[in-house]
Amino acid sequence: MRDSHLQDFYTFLRFPSISTDDAYSEKLGECAHWLVEKLNGIGLEAQRVSTPGHPVVWAKNKHQPGRKTVMLYGHYDVQPPDPLELWDSPPFEPVLKNGYVYARGATDNKGQILAHILGIQEVMAEHGDLPVNLHLIIEGEEEIGSNNLPGFLKEHRAALKCDVAIVSDTGMIARGVPTLSYGLRGVTACEVKVTGAKMDLHSGVFGGAVANSVTALARLLATLHDENGRVAIDGFYDDVKPLEEWEREAWRKLPIDGDKEILAETGAPALFGEKGFSTLERLWARPTAEINGIGGGYQGKGTKTVIASHAMAKLTFRLVPNQDGDAILKLARKHLEKHRPPGVTMEITDGHSGPWYLTDPHSTFGRAAQHALKEAFKAEVALIREGGSIPIVSQFRDILGVETLLLGLALPNCRAHSPNENFPLENLEAGIKMNKAILQEVGAGGP
Amino acid sequence: MRDSHLQDFYTFLRFPSISTDDAYSEKLGECAHWLVEKLNGIGLEAQRVSTPGHPVVWAKNKHQPGRKTVMLYGHYDVQPPDPLELWDSPPFEPVLKNGYVYARGATDNKGQILAHILGIQEVMAEHGDLPVNLHLIIEGEEEIGSNNLPGFLKEHRAALKCDVAIVSDTGMIARGVPTLSYGLRGVTACEVKVTGAKMDLHSGVFGGAVANSVTALARLLATLHDENGRVAIDGFYDDVKPLEEWEREAWRKLPIDGDKEILAETGAPALFGEKGFSTLERLWARPTAEINGIGGGYQGKGTKTVIASHAMAKLTFRLVPNQDGDAILKLARKHLEKHRPPGVTMEITDGHSGPWYLTDPHSTFGRAAQHALKEAFKAEVALIREGGSIPIVSQFRDILGVETLLLGLALPNCRAHSPNENFPLENLEAGIKMNKAILQEVGAGGP
Repeated sequence: MRDSHLQDFYTFLRFPSISTDDAYSEKLGECAHWLVEKLNGIGLEAQRVSTPGHPVVWAKNKHQPGRKTVMLYGHYDVQPPDPLELWDSPPFEPVLKNGYVYARGATDNKGQILAHILGIQEVMAEHGDLPVNLHLIIEGEEEIGSNNLPGFLKEHRAALKCDVAIVSDTGMIARGVPTLSYGLRGVTACEVKVTGAKMDLHSGVFGGAVANSVTALARLLATLHDENGRVAIDGFYDDVKPLEEWEREAWRKLPIDGDKEILAETGAPALFGEKGFSTLERLWARPTAEINGIGGGYQGKGTKTVIASHAMAKLTFRLVPNQDGDAILKLARKHLEKHRPPGVTMEITDGHSGPWYLTDPHSTFGRAAQHALKEAFKAEVALIREGGSIPIVSQFRDILGVETLLLGLALPNCRAHSPNENFPLENLEAGIKMNKAILQEVGAGGP
Repeated sequence: MRDSHLQDFYTFLRFPSISTDDAYSEKLGECAHWLVEKLNGIGLEAQRVSTPGHPVVWAKNKHQPGRKTVMLYGHYDVQPPDPLELWDSPPFEPVLKNGYVYARGATDNKGQILAHILGIQEVMAEHGDLPVNLHLIIEGEEEIGSNNLPGFLKEHRAALKCDVAIVSDTGMIARGVPTLSYGLRGVTACEVKVTGAKMDLHSGVFGGAVANSVTALARLLATLHDENGRVAIDGFYDDVKPLEEWEREAWRKLPIDGDKEILAETGAPALFGEKGFSTLERLWARPTAEINGIGGGYQGKGTKTVIASHAMAKLTFRLVPNQDGDAILKLARKHLEKHRPPGVTMEITDGHSGPWYLTDPHSTFGRAAQHALKEAFKAEVALIREGGSIPIVSQFRDILGVETLLLGLALPNCRAHSPNENFPLENLEAGIKMNKAILQEVGAGGP
């Protein structure tokens, strides 16, 4: 690792680019400015593009006709560091310990996007050009929903025309195991509110005469699953594309014990979920219905003998191919209405949907990605899907018409979004190699 | 109504004797002082007895051997007036409108205890003595649980020896319908906490692999009742004393439409409860399991895709003769443990129990009370039970060994504990007559 690479990493990490807190707007601006300087310094043409929110950094090399065009995406904004007292060192003063750099944003996403930048820097320094036409897009609002990115993509759709997108913002299944994610779950949301009496009632004076909104809500929510954790909404699984046999086999052969690791990581007393599927299959390829929050009545200390007027629950559904978010919300509404307990009224508020994503890891670009990963890590590549959602990937498909290669460098214990976030220098180095290899592979037209 | 009676009522109501707020301690002291002066002024021997909390006012007439001894109980503390903006007039500036006095404490309990005081005043003024030996006990902590009353009763047990207790702090079933309450429900409480993972999890990354604590809690709570609202805990009803035929008949014949009134009062879309019992039977003589509060996960605006580490619910059980609070908590615990969903751990914390109360309205004192009520209101007496709990009634039985006559003067729309609390002057007048009649009846040895 060159000293200057480490210095760049530290400088990048020292910007408290917390997008969710307006107090840090100026710091985000300074961070974007630094990126523009850095990217111009390595021979790209970089600019800062204003948005209604935080600016997008957009850099290009000199495009030449007849070459493949790659869009490389990352983000320079980070999560808030709270709770501060749980950090072993200040979140914006990077510290190197046992080969890991500790700082907010080390993994998510500064370390990962910097690996690409440094890879580009090395190639530009050596050859004066890249083997592809490059768009490097680094936004400042990923942690707050990338609300202004679709506008940016739409506005510059013609200029951003490309063949494939590359994103390093996902995980490796284990240290040293290069990982290509070729699928993501989508998500859709709704909120249900159950109302009994028009005001909170005394449970002595009225208990037994009218429905209890909390009891009714609990009974309603208990209908969402069967006792084995399978979603009990009629038609919920109708559009689910079955897992391919090759993926089930590939996931069985992954060099990790998914059950053991998830048990250790979550501290749950046991794993639990839909029968007939392995834990990884449930996480990556099966839809869920989760209650993300519930509230009603008295939640303070001790006892208050109240029958709450209303109670609410927040639901999200993780979606997999080929489920449609709006269709799932309709089925959920029908289910909830059918199972509404007596004595209460119900209001359902639909939230927004983000689609699932699935691409072919065996396509030309997919194979190029596998080669690049193998080259960078000198190890067999894990082909996985992920349980979370990355809305921008669908936007790249919808707005720019391209597939995305998810070449994540985040380790399972990277503590993204948590105190003591860290990134190993070995992944920064491997990321640099990976960047060089993938641009080379794509530029050469695939393996 | 004598002018001086109304002046006393207004003076009593102007003290903001809010026991729950320490800022008003001095006002409670001033209110107790006023009562002592008032009671001494009408010919009783009154004193203010200190407790670890607010003082008790204790007044006696000159006791004479061979007479019945009556303990009359009330309280001078009131609920906080919040929310202030919903009052049509300031809560501690009494206003007379259409025969009703509006102020905090007008019904609960100043109007009711003052009616007794004024009845005693009139008899003392006319005869120089009462037909019974009297203990008048007016405490200042009823609205915060009467925590220091048992200590007071125990300390003065010998001095307080009496034959019967009289309390006017319950309701009339309708305006003009004198009401004797001969039973109350008890209550017991517990809290259940369900824990899955050791921390909140991302519902995309982990959803489907581990149990959701909120879902598990909802499924658990849904087992507490059957679909008709009957409590489904094994053995829950085993000790329930069946309703007597005479009470079912008496309640059917009450001059009120319980269903209609409870629907109107609560604004609930429908009544709901255990099959096979009328609404009044369910309220007054059937036990319940209520969820008074539930909380878990994200309850703020919008969506947070979290799987909560833990979720909790607060339960209370209303108890009827001959259920035992501790036994019910044991059954509840057994039920919850039996139905604990997979993938989570559970903690149950038991709360305190307050016993039910049942006395015979046809006893000598019960008949005396019925006569006094009929005499005061010139109407047939309604014999009812109530759904709430009044722990002091059991303390009178346990510590002093006496039964309590509950001669309530509160109307259904009195708004006790709510804005615009009110008390009709006709009930102040009837209460004065009732006091004179009941002391006369008891003094004469019953009807």
